[in-house]
Amino acid sequence: MNFNYHIPTKVLFGAGKLNELLNENLPGKKALIVTTGGKSVKKYGYLSRLENILTEKRVEYVLFDKILPNPIKSHVMEGAALAKKENCDFIIGLGGGSSIDSAKSIAVMVNNPGDYWDYIVGGSGKGLPVKEDVLPIVAITTTAGTGTEADPWTVITKEDTKEKIGFGNEHTFPTLSVVDPELMLTVPPNLTAYQGFDALFHSTEGYIANIATPISDAYALKSIELIAKYLSKAVKDGSDLEARTQVALANTISGLVESTSSCTSEHSMEHALSANHPELPHGAGLIMLSEAYYTFFAERSPERFVNMARAMGVDVNSINEKERPMAFVKALVKLQEDCSVRELKMSSYNITKEEIPSLALNARETMGGLFELDPYKLSIEETIEIMLKAYK
Amino acid sequence: MNFNYHIPTKVLFGAGKLNELLNENLPGKKALIVTTGGKSVKKYGYLSRLENILTEKRVEYVLFDKILPNPIKSHVMEGAALAKKENCDFIIGLGGGSSIDSAKSIAVMVNNPGDYWDYIVGGSGKGLPVKEDVLPIVAITTTAGTGTEADPWTVITKEDTKEKIGFGNEHTFPTLSVVDPELMLTVPPNLTAYQGFDALFHSTEGYIANIATPISDAYALKSIELIAKYLSKAVKDGSDLEARTQVALANTISGLVESTSSCTSEHSMEHALSANHPELPHGAGLIMLSEAYYTFFAERSPERFVNMARAMGVDVNSINEKERPMAFVKALVKLQEDCSVRELKMSSYNITKEEIPSLALNARETMGGLFELDPYKLSIEETIEIMLKAYK
Ligand SMILES: [Fe+2]
Ligand SMILES: [Fe+2]
Repeated sequence: MNFNYHIPTKVLFGAGKLNELLNENLPGKKALIVTTGGKSVKKYGYLSRLENILTEKRVEYVLFDKILPNPIKSHVMEGAALAKKENCDFIIGLGGGSSIDSAKSIAVMVNNPGDYWDYIVGGSGKGLPVKEDVLPIVAITTTAGTGTEADPWTVITKEDTKEKIGFGNEHTFPTLSVVDPELMLTVPPNLTAYQGFDALFHSTEGYIANIATPISDAYALKSIELIAKYLSKAVKDGSDLEARTQVALANTISGLVESTSSCTSEHSMEHALSANHPELPHGAGLIMLSEAYYTFFAERSPERFVNMARAMGVDVNSINEKERPMAFVKALVKLQEDCSVRELKMSSYNITKEEIPSLALNARETMGGLFELDPYKLSIEETIEIMLKAYK
Repeated sequence: MNFNYHIPTKVLFGAGKLNELLNENLPGKKALIVTTGGKSVKKYGYLSRLENILTEKRVEYVLFDKILPNPIKSHVMEGAALAKKENCDFIIGLGGGSSIDSAKSIAVMVNNPGDYWDYIVGGSGKGLPVKEDVLPIVAITTTAGTGTEADPWTVITKEDTKEKIGFGNEHTFPTLSVVDPELMLTVPPNLTAYQGFDALFHSTEGYIANIATPISDAYALKSIELIAKYLSKAVKDGSDLEARTQVALANTISGLVESTSSCTSEHSMEHALSANHPELPHGAGLIMLSEAYYTFFAERSPERFVNMARAMGVDVNSINEKERPMAFVKALVKLQEDCSVRELKMSSYNITKEEIPSLALNARETMGGLFELDPYKLSIEETIEIMLKAYK
């Protein structure tokens, strides 16, 4: 047992916390606000609330509001050029994971030369070291999905080569994050479910990963427990502030899991799906893969699966010992039913069965590193087998 | 549920990690090394290993090796004056909690004017705000007890008034901590037990505290689980590196508990004991108080006690529901037997029964704040009652 623990982010958590930003020291004098090209942050007043706070704190800002749900490299480069031209000295990501991840990647590219993909490890990335300062990042999250507010990771797609790859280092942790569940009350039911399952899988993957530690285990089981208890409530009644709060906390904790353990190959497989079919939401892709994925691993990491079943609320002691690992998969399927996402199909997103082998290859080429962290090392054949089983 | 989460410390954890300090950026060019007046850090070569690393990194240093097991204010002032005179720009605490806590308090006093007690809240402290910069702190811990390597707290005694009070703010987190269980192999059995129970009580108090959150809960139950599994092994065979490692991790996690929840009045009561009887080790004082303390609270926070019993490894389901909360106390007593500390007596440390009421008053006057965080608000009569029940 040998690890480094470092999560420098300060998180303001709770209903109404956005207002407290007024009392915080911000890490600069002029911000680039990075947010979605969609309407929600404007329609619900989140952007103007942020702008008012900055004005009151005499912090200047420039707006970059083009980010797509699956954020792309060209927007990272465009945002970084804008921040440089405008002399911004910190970056604020406002929105879901796509806005915050873009903010992180922009923060890297303001002072570092060349192209963002020069610094990416995997696929066609050049894997160069980041040499110049990364600008400080403030994250204000309006969804409960990626955990990005409490981890260093950012996931960006290179449009031309359809590579969707994660990146991060100790400088891409947000300096300050605001997790205010009141900003999440308006997320529609299907996105609430997709994002909640994304959070769940960050924790389940982080729990079965072969680099898990007792600290990441504690985070993972707590996050799994909270998602199992509260996600379907938040899906069924989006205005349930308690359920929103608990799911938001589960998601932030899943970020702590990602900061202390890692995702596994489930995420590599999903990135291949949504990089090639950008209309597929990341969480939906994970849901489609999950039953086949966890069924494959249940017997290869039985004790961990029993613990996850217990965290999902299963009375494990009352089950025949042999069937306990699969009790997690059953609880997972049941949760998907309760959240009305059981019927998601790859074919609805124009993914064909014939594509699966090449998507499996893409997964291993672009995010092969995560396959090293699985509790059992998948062959290419087994990768294809899991993805085919998940296909419908 | 509304809280701020911020633990900026980077922790290097694991056997052999001290050597990795060589590859870390240290937060300054000239260190004040704060360590114990005892012999162990010299005898076992820990100090010379640190000095060699600093020399190799071309970091200058000055040694301040006077710290007592119950560290005192006059040494804080003396160390700060030395750091100032020598133009040190960071402080390294090397040793147990006393050395690291002293390092934190010295770091505060190098640039802040007046007396350390001007900044203390409680007792005769003036509660002034810390205005000037706190120097960066590096913690290298050679014991598994206080959790100070992963929290902002420092506990110092004012010798003349016999007040032992905790202090800390967001600037007194160590910048960098090294937790290397190899440095703990030489801790004698009784100190191993005292320190391990101190770590346990940081977690149990943090778990029953009324400001606990799901994050602090996850830390607390994991730490309790590890102590219950490994402490008696480390006590019985100090050379058992796995047991030392797990206990060290439990202790670091208990620091995370203290950074996210709080100690409760058990610590106030103990500080009164050891401030007035400085030969009493802090952990031993806590052990003496614990059975009476937790028995008192078992029925006042039953669900939390059942969860703690489960974390201690008790098969809770097999116990009559009414008796489940007290199952934690029974497991605690059993662990004390297994660690050969069940027979500790206040009378062996010259504490008299007649003193108890005034010690209870001292507890409430100097660390009254922690009484506000108990799951049930103790009266002065109940405080005395618990301390009298603990007396033998
Ligand atoms: Fe994800
Ligand atoms: Fe303590």
